[in-house]
Amino acid sequence: MRNFADILIEQSIQKKSVFVVGLDPDIAFFPHFLIKDTQDASQEVIANAIFQFNQIIIDAVADHVVAIKPQLAYYEVYGSHGIRALEETIAYARSKGLLIINDAKRGDIGSTSLAYAKAFLGQSPLSGDMVTVNPFLGSDGYLPFVDVAKNNGKGLFILLKTSNPSSHEIQNLSLEDGELLYFRIAENLHKLSLSTKGEHDYSFIGTVVGATYPLEAERIRQFLPHCIFLVPGFGMQGGKAEDLKVFFDAKGHGALISSSRGIIYCYMDNNPYWEATTAEEMHTLIQKAALQAKEQINAVRGI
Amino acid sequence: MRNFADILIEQSIQKKSVFVVGLDPDIAFFPHFLIKDTQDASQEVIANAIFQFNQIIIDAVADHVVAIKPQLAYYEVYGSHGIRALEETIAYARSKGLLIINDAKRGDIGSTSLAYAKAFLGQSPLSGDMVTVNPFLGSDGYLPFVDVAKNNGKGLFILLKTSNPSSHEIQNLSLEDGELLYFRIAENLHKLSLSTKGEHDYSFIGTVVGATYPLEAERIRQFLPHCIFLVPGFGMQGGKAEDLKVFFDAKGHGALISSSRGIIYCYMDNNPYWEATTAEEMHTLIQKAALQAKEQINAVRGI
Repeated sequence: MRNFADILIEQSIQKKSVFVVGLDPDIAFFPHFLIKDTQDASQEVIANAIFQFNQIIIDAVADHVVAIKPQLAYYEVYGSHGIRALEETIAYARSKGLLIINDAKRGDIGSTSLAYAKAFLGQSPLSGDMVTVNPFLGSDGYLPFVDVAKNNGKGLFILLKTSNPSSHEIQNLSLEDGELLYFRIAENLHKLSLSTKGEHDYSFIGTVVGATYPLEAERIRQFLPHCIFLVPGFGMQGGKAEDLKVFFDAKGHGALISSSRGIIYCYMDNNPYWEATTAEEMHTLIQKAALQAKEQINAVRGI
Repeated sequence: MRNFADILIEQSIQKKSVFVVGLDPDIAFFPHFLIKDTQDASQEVIANAIFQFNQIIIDAVADHVVAIKPQLAYYEVYGSHGIRALEETIAYARSKGLLIINDAKRGDIGSTSLAYAKAFLGQSPLSGDMVTVNPFLGSDGYLPFVDVAKNNGKGLFILLKTSNPSSHEIQNLSLEDGELLYFRIAENLHKLSLSTKGEHDYSFIGTVVGATYPLEAERIRQFLPHCIFLVPGFGMQGGKAEDLKVFFDAKGHGALISSSRGIIYCYMDNNPYWEATTAEEMHTLIQKAALQAKEQINAVRGI
C-alpha cells in the first residue's frame, strides 16, 4: 500500500536530493541585519528575526534539499513567540514544496504520546510530515506515533543510534544474550516495518542513525532493509561524506542526510566580519554550501 | 551547599504536602461552561479555555499541593496558542506560591539539550522550577540540564522507571553483567547526586519512578538516598496509596507523588451529566479530591 515513504522517495528522485537542512536558529550567530541587540530584545523581536533567518535559508536551499528539519528546542526557548516563528517557518517551507521533519525526540506514556503525535503529525499548526521519536518508554510510548502517522499519511523516525559522543552509554549497552541495546530496538522496528511497507518497499517508520557511527550504520542498514534512515551529524558534528555509503541501499535510497550548523552558519567560516554579512551574501553562501553538500552526497550514492 | 532540593523540602514541610497535580488539559473532558463546540473552535478559543480550566484547578488545589506538573504535549498540540496558555498557567501558579515541574521528557545531543535546558530552567517564559529529562542519549544529553539547573538554583528529574505498562521493554532489559538497564542509569545518577547534595542531604537531580512499580522503587530508594523521586501514576494509572511507602525515606521525605486525571477530571466520576458541571462544582470537587489524596499520602508518610 502506498505510504509516506513513497512520497519521500519520489520527491527525492525528482529533486535528485536526499539532503536535509536542519533549522537550529541561535541568535548569537545571527548577522546584525537580522538582530543587533540580542540581550535586550523582546521575545517577539527575536521570533521575527528567527522567521526571517529561516526564510533566507529556505529560499537558498529549496532547490537542493528534500526537507527541512527544525530542531524544536531552538523555538521552545522563546516560548509561544518562538513556536509562532516555527509555525510560520513550517508554512513557508511547505509553500516552497519542501517536506518538514520536526526534530522533537518526543516520547511519553501512551496517552501523552498520542497528544504529541497529534501535535506533530495531526491537524496542529506545528504539524509537519515526519517527527523524531525517543523509544526509552517502550512500545506504548511510540505506537501512538505509528497510528497517527498511518492514519494521516505521514512518517516518523525512531532513535536507534544517535550522533552524539555519549550515545554509546545506553544505546550500546551489551545485553545478557550478547546483543547490543540499539539492536534489540532494531529487532522490534524490523517487525513493524515488514507490515507497513509501501510501493517502494520502505515503511513510513524510519530510524535515526548518526553519520558519526558508520560501523553501526552498516549493520543496521543490512538488518532493516525497509526502514529509511534519518542521518544527522553530517558536517559540523564530524560525519564525513565518504562514510555515508553504508547508509544507502544499492539504488542510493533509504537515507536522508542532514546537516545543520555547517550550512546555516556557513557565512561565519573563517570570516571575522561575519556579523556584517548581508541577506544577499547569506543567500549566496548558504545556497553554495547546500549545493556542494547535495553533490557530495549524490557522488557517494552514485547519482 | 543549599540547593533546589532544600527549597522543595522546606516548602513540603511548611505545606504538609508532597502531593503534585498534573495539568494535562484535554478539551474533550471540559465542562460546557469552558467550551461547547470543541470541533470548530479556534486555537485561540481553545487556549483561553485551557488557561481558565487550569486556573480553576490551581485555585482548588493550591492549599494541598506543593507543585503543579504541566504535561507539555497537551499544550503543544495547540501550537503557539497552547504554549501561551502554558505560560499564563505557569505565571498564575507562581503567583499562588506553587512550584512548577514541566513534564517535558526532553533529551537530545548536547547543544540541543542546552537549548531545552534554557527553555525549561532558564529565563524563558516557559521556564518552571524543575523539568523531566530522558536519558536515552547518554550523559552529554542530560548534563546540560544539570549545569543550567545548578547555575539557576533549579532542579530536574531523570527518567529511570516510567509508570507505563511497556516501560520494562527497554528500562528492565538485563545487561551482560546481570544488572538491569534502569539500575545502570541509577549508578550514574548516584555518583552525580553525591557531589550535588544540599543541606537536607538531597541533590537537585532527582529521578522519575512510577507509582505502578513499587518493587523497583524499593530497590532504587535504597540505592539512591540523595535523589528525590517524582512519582507519577498514582490514581488513574493504577498506583495505590499503600504501595507508596517504599518511595519515601524514614522521615517521609524524598518523593513527590503526582496524580493528573484522577484529580483534574474527578467531576466526571459516575456523573452522566458532567458536561453541565459548573465552575463552583468543579472547584469544590477538585479541592476535595486533592485534600483526600494529600491526606492518603501523608498517612503513608506517617505525617
